[in-house]
Amino acid sequence: MNRLCVHSITTKPWSLEECLRHYPAAGVSALTLWRNHLVGRDATEVGRQVREAGLELTSLCRGGFFPAADQAGRQAAIDDNLRCIEEAAALGAGWVVLVCGALPGQSLDQSRAQIAEGIAAVLPAAQAAGVALAIEPLHPMYADDRSAINTMAQANALCDELGSPRGLGIALDVYHVWWDPDLRRQIQISAQAGRLLAFHICDWLTPTTDLLNDRGLMGEGCIPIAEISRWVDEAGFAGMREVEIFSNRRWAGDQQAWLGQIVDAYRCLYPR
Amino acid sequence: MNRLCVHSITTKPWSLEECLRHYPAAGVSALTLWRNHLVGRDATEVGRQVREAGLELTSLCRGGFFPAADQAGRQAAIDDNLRCIEEAAALGAGWVVLVCGALPGQSLDQSRAQIAEGIAAVLPAAQAAGVALAIEPLHPMYADDRSAINTMAQANALCDELGSPRGLGIALDVYHVWWDPDLRRQIQISAQAGRLLAFHICDWLTPTTDLLNDRGLMGEGCIPIAEISRWVDEAGFAGMREVEIFSNRRWAGDQQAWLGQIVDAYRCLYPR
Repeated sequence: MNRLCVHSITTKPWSLEECLRHYPAAGVSALTLWRNHLVGRDATEVGRQVREAGLELTSLCRGGFFPAADQAGRQAAIDDNLRCIEEAAALGAGWVVLVCGALPGQSLDQSRAQIAEGIAAVLPAAQAAGVALAIEPLHPMYADDRSAINTMAQANALCDELGSPRGLGIALDVYHVWWDPDLRRQIQISAQAGRLLAFHICDWLTPTTDLLNDRGLMGEGCIPIAEISRWVDEAGFAGMREVEIFSNRRWAGDQQAWLGQIVDAYRCLYPR
Repeated sequence: MNRLCVHSITTKPWSLEECLRHYPAAGVSALTLWRNHLVGRDATEVGRQVREAGLELTSLCRGGFFPAADQAGRQAAIDDNLRCIEEAAALGAGWVVLVCGALPGQSLDQSRAQIAEGIAAVLPAAQAAGVALAIEPLHPMYADDRSAINTMAQANALCDELGSPRGLGIALDVYHVWWDPDLRRQIQISAQAGRLLAFHICDWLTPTTDLLNDRGLMGEGCIPIAEISRWVDEAGFAGMREVEIFSNRRWAGDQQAWLGQIVDAYRCLYPR
């Protein structure tokens, strides 16, 4: 249970205070904060609240979205990522998760170049603040407008392209990469390069009725989560297992019951 | 226009007779038949009707779905594929498109092994009948229950694994593979091996509201169709450009107007 982290978006209807009250009571050890829970608040104070509630603060979701049609848009994205890094530092979060972005009106190659430029532009500030940046490869079904980085191989290549600098790594989410026949090898490559920062879990439902908000609870779907967890651990990863589930169906129900089901599913998946 | 083929499912509300009446009148040169249009009909007679209407009969959609939980299920799939091959031969179609299948309850590796076994089991009959088999890599969002073959690289590897036999090839659909950074190279590999059999076109809408039936008309979305077409042609492909669009929205409208828009979009995409 000391590796169980829950993303605040997983219980989206709850306020920050409700998350901080219910997560520790349910046995959750850590929290990844989504920026919507920071709006109008002081990040240093929120960091203190989280720790006083007995939770680790794993990471901040999310920065990224670097591609834009013009220079002003790309600069606005860089500025927003700099603010996000400041917030993460004030919170005491280990890293910022990057959903890298894509633009339907331009080629994936152009978006990929703008992503590399954007990361290079904000990395010095992240390094100075002691906050890492975690590139999250997104499922290819999000290549139109959410991320032009869609596989672990691409995320590894992007880190290499940027010189594999200190403070740049990868967030692996099983939802996005479970289908990839090259997954195990790319996990090993990322871990050997010391860049496997985060491990997100949830499940893929059959049928999936919404491209964004119809994720399943671990065990409800077809992702071999136990096997991928083993690969990740065998590669030397010892960090949090972060439950991140977007689900209109679950958000419509009772959140305390939902959190209980998450904890039960986690215990079933990781019995020791 | 002599390379314009339309899949009968693209105008799903139409009967076969309506397709045969309207497609040639609109300037369409060829038809790929979906099996629903064959139900209760004699395939030899349908093939004759298609040619009398002035259309080439490109291929038959679709075989595949080889994985199953038990041996009886896998044999039933093989039997159905043998019937599909017979139908294609009677029609005079060049190949059967294979949507290879997947089963949420078993690993992708198991499904991939069962796909290879299934293809190997039916290939001799296809070769004897002069009907090719075209493996269609499906988008990774269909890896749960439609296909465990999700990239051109996997399709090429599967052909290699089976000994790259005569009569086994690949159907490339831009919808499934447009996001893949390795696409151009894999097109070249498939063409050099003489196995690039089919080229399907449509577009990816932003947002996509349904995982199955919300495809766009060429030009409505973000797929670089002209660029991928160039790669395909440069690799030596000279076959049909097959319009295959599943769209609840389009199927709900007037099909003759829809066919007109398809022809306009095709002319705009391929002006010469």
